Amino acid sequence: MPDVEEAAGEEGGQKMSKKQLNKLAKAAKKEEKKQESAAKRQDDEKNDENEGEDVSKDLYGEYGLIQSTEKNTINFLDVSEISEKLDGQEVWVRGRLHTSRSKGKTCFIIVRQRCHTVQGLLIIGDKLSRQMLKFVSNISKESVIDVCGVVKRVEAEIASCTQKSAELHVTRVFVVSASEPRLPLQIEDAARAQDQSSELSTVNLDTRLDNRVLDLRTPTNQAIFKIQAGTCQFFRDVLTKRGFTEIHTPKIISAASEGGANVFQVTYFKGSAYLAQSPQLYKQMAIAGDFDKVFTVGAVFRAEDSNTHRHMTEFVGLDLEMAFKFHYHEVMETIGQVLIDIFKGIQQNYQHEIETVRKQYPSEPFEFVEPALILKYTEGVAMLREAGVNMEDDADLSTPDEKLLGKLVKDKYKTDFYILDKYPLAVRPFYTMPDATNAKYSNSYDMFMRGEEILSGAQRIHDPTLLTERAKHHKIQIDQIQAYIDAFKYGCPPHAGGGIGMERVTMLFLGLGNIRLSSLFPRDPKRLTP
Amino acid sequence: MPDVEEAAGEEGGQKMSKKQLNKLAKAAKKEEKKQESAAKRQDDEKNDENEGEDVSKDLYGEYGLIQSTEKNTINFLDVSEISEKLDGQEVWVRGRLHTSRSKGKTCFIIVRQRCHTVQGLLIIGDKLSRQMLKFVSNISKESVIDVCGVVKRVEAEIASCTQKSAELHVTRVFVVSASEPRLPLQIEDAARAQDQSSELSTVNLDTRLDNRVLDLRTPTNQAIFKIQAGTCQFFRDVLTKRGFTEIHTPKIISAASEGGANVFQVTYFKGSAYLAQSPQLYKQMAIAGDFDKVFTVGAVFRAEDSNTHRHMTEFVGLDLEMAFKFHYHEVMETIGQVLIDIFKGIQQNYQHEIETVRKQYPSEPFEFVEPALILKYTEGVAMLREAGVNMEDDADLSTPDEKLLGKLVKDKYKTDFYILDKYPLAVRPFYTMPDATNAKYSNSYDMFMRGEEILSGAQRIHDPTLLTERAKHHKIQIDQIQAYIDAFKYGCPPHAGGGIGMERVTMLFLGLGNIRLSSLFPRDPKRLTP
Repeated sequence: MPDVEEAAGEEGGQKMSKKQLNKLAKAAKKEEKKQESAAKRQDDEKNDENEGEDVSKDLYGEYGLIQSTEKNTINFLDVSEISEKLDGQEVWVRGRLHTSRSKGKTCFIIVRQRCHTVQGLLIIGDKLSRQMLKFVSNISKESVIDVCGVVKRVEAEIASCTQKSAELHVTRVFVVSASEPRLPLQIEDAARAQDQSSELSTVNLDTRLDNRVLDLRTPTNQAIFKIQAGTCQFFRDVLTKRGFTEIHTPKIISAASEGGANVFQVTYFKGSAYLAQSPQLYKQMAIAGDFDKVFTVGAVFRAEDSNTHRHMTEFVGLDLEMAFKFHYHEVMETIGQVLIDIFKGIQQNYQHEIETVRKQYPSEPFEFVEPALILKYTEGVAMLREAGVNMEDDADLSTPDEKLLGKLVKDKYKTDFYILDKYPLAVRPFYTMPDATNAKYSNSYDMFMRGEEILSGAQRIHDPTLLTERAKHHKIQIDQIQAYIDAFKYGCPPHAGGGIGMERVTMLFLGLGNIRLSSLFPRDPKRLTP
Repeated sequence: MPDVEEAAGEEGGQKMSKKQLNKLAKAAKKEEKKQESAAKRQDDEKNDENEGEDVSKDLYGEYGLIQSTEKNTINFLDVSEISEKLDGQEVWVRGRLHTSRSKGKTCFIIVRQRCHTVQGLLIIGDKLSRQMLKFVSNISKESVIDVCGVVKRVEAEIASCTQKSAELHVTRVFVVSASEPRLPLQIEDAARAQDQSSELSTVNLDTRLDNRVLDLRTPTNQAIFKIQAGTCQFFRDVLTKRGFTEIHTPKIISAASEGGANVFQVTYFKGSAYLAQSPQLYKQMAIAGDFDKVFTVGAVFRAEDSNTHRHMTEFVGLDLEMAFKFHYHEVMETIGQVLIDIFKGIQQNYQHEIETVRKQYPSEPFEFVEPALILKYTEGVAMLREAGVNMEDDADLSTPDEKLLGKLVKDKYKTDFYILDKYPLAVRPFYTMPDATNAKYSNSYDMFMRGEEILSGAQRIHDPTLLTERAKHHKIQIDQIQAYIDAFKYGCPPHAGGGIGMERVTMLFLGLGNIRLSSLFPRDPKRLTP
């Protein structure tokens, strides 16, 4: 027991601390295990010898590190392609060993590839040795393996797999990349729905996020991020078809553009800079630069110490801005329709994924009406008052108010998506165009899914004099935003736009309940890793 | 002359500096002008009175601030739609007053809308008053205007406009948003090609970028950024069709992930963080998380004090990562084909824009062969040696070497795009997979356009032990990248990928010569605004 001796030697004859004692105990235990496994290995080898020559010796094993020494000559199928239609054919798949269970002369394995699973069966026989069976049953779960087998139609559906009509009679198994035997979380647990009545374990959010690489392997997560990728694709495709141009705006900016609070500071060579809280100023400058209609998808940063279910310090903004002719409703109605087209796109193309997610995170289907329901802010306030909320006409909506209003709207209009138009001027950013007839209000709007805000937008002030006046009113240092104000000095069409929180759309469409579940690697005031 | 008196008073009887004298002179000149224009105004008003009632008084003017008080009832055409086919029809367009030129009873205007221009003609007559003509000829260039007119076929082509077969006989003109009369740069100058033999003025790069909103209005810039938007669209579409999933990776990270140098530091609440130099580690973690094939488009940050034609501190990365079966060439060849598909997409869909750009920035057409040419690094070195360059087999290529090799390759293989494979291990990042048979080399590649690097990529080490060893060799603090290393502990398929610099692709495809011309709002060590 060299570890223990060394540790003891270090301490000499002195009295040991609790920590030191623990260390000793651990080392002793480790050594004990080592000896046990060495003994087992000897036994195994003996058994193997007894079993005689290995008839399967070229049919299983480890590839070793794949370092691109040979080209691929195998035709791999996807697990999702395996069905009774291939009955009798020999196929190769590469996937993860999801589970294995051996008993006597047989071993059942489940091979998982993203959202799909297939059952494999090994039985000791003429061409399948005891050694091979042992090798396979000792492969640690989550290892990446290559499996060759003959597809066999099954009589009774395989309940535990997505491929229900056929299994593989396995002939070869090779380990591509082995997993450590001890996993920080079990994929089955991470994939399980929270259920108070069940005693089966689930995985809490922090454990999930600490071990995100494993967590992402659940069918639910595979589905969530497929849907999210679809959301972005529909956003861009719908806008491109409508004549929008994609742009890319800088994230490092020279001044805290939107009021100064909640902005991250960056060391920039010998000076300092900030991280953009939105592409707002730049997409407007693109409009002043004659781009007419623009969109941009990119990271936005909020140094807000908000530890809620819906705030992150970094998220993906789906932003758009559009010149209009006479009325900002031309833009607001466009955005409403763009969102509806996205919802339709998801529902039409990702039904399987939606159902996969719903098994773990049950939710009501997302409902909407077309065209989008538009309510005036004052109408919203009136509905809340009628429901007993005590508030002024031009007060801001609290988060609980928004939630409640969402419920009231759903009851009355049967939609989980709606637009609230004409917000009080006082609660909007300085660049918001005031209403022409009632200066208490503004040409601005929010859009909601299931009672939570996913978009904030408005007609922007395109006149440099009024813009300066409003910035001063908001106590913004004019010299810090001079380049932005100057952008409007050389003629600028009236324009409006909005910014959508991508992760919020995913969270609310799927009813996930926490924004961290719809971010691949979420960032909040307390989380910067992985 | 209050300005002058005040200035003089301040100085009392002391002798004045040159600066002070200049100030006085300027103030005097200003006052003189003021008086002149007041006199002119009086004259004008007198004339107007003499002219009697204004027959056009409802046909021109300023809308005033468009604040969304009325809905649009006008059917606007795009300038690009105006041609002799509409002869005799009355149409409305909204565009910028590009130029105006009045003489006696006529005024010619050119209305510009993005890449397109149309000529308008006003002649004093029964329905068009002298006052209206004066109003129109006084509108400052770059103002956004609404113009109504009757389309008239013309006999001789209009050389100065893109719409050559017809002009507008203008009946109404309204100012939507007026420009200040003095522009910091002239659009015609900004749109002009550099030509040593011409005396016409052009605009230098810094003036352009300082006044980017005006500069972006040139047809060349409109075309450059349309092509860039197309590049991103093709990148995503081609990959989506090949089964890739779009992901979004965090930009704020807890540790300088790729070696520590050249990284921007961010104040993160009470601690600090860094800006990601690439999505490298996260796209690999997505592969370990079973995403199989991923791409991401987003900002990447390099705190490098490089003031060259091809470096920026922030740019857009078109990144991809892909699991492969046995050989990284599966990925390298895929990326090569993706780039070729992008080039074909641009050439097939943006020919008009390419020609527009080439008028200002002349370049040879971009040539490529299909499939992509792949050369070994050692072959490249041999070609350079043959051309007289003195270098070792496993030395890194300098920028001039790369340029020269690009020329040699173009001469020999008739392609502006090629792949250089199997770089020396020593010149690549720690996570690069070494070559299996010769440890001096690695499974890595760069891709080049017109002799400049646009992509760097490799097979990555997917084994945590080897990864740790290589990181230590590169003197990277293991504890800072532990989450990344851990990602490979639970099985990970072999994988490879690469990162493309979006702005470099635009610059090199179009032969622009400076990366700042292909970035909407470029960032370099010396530029943070606008």
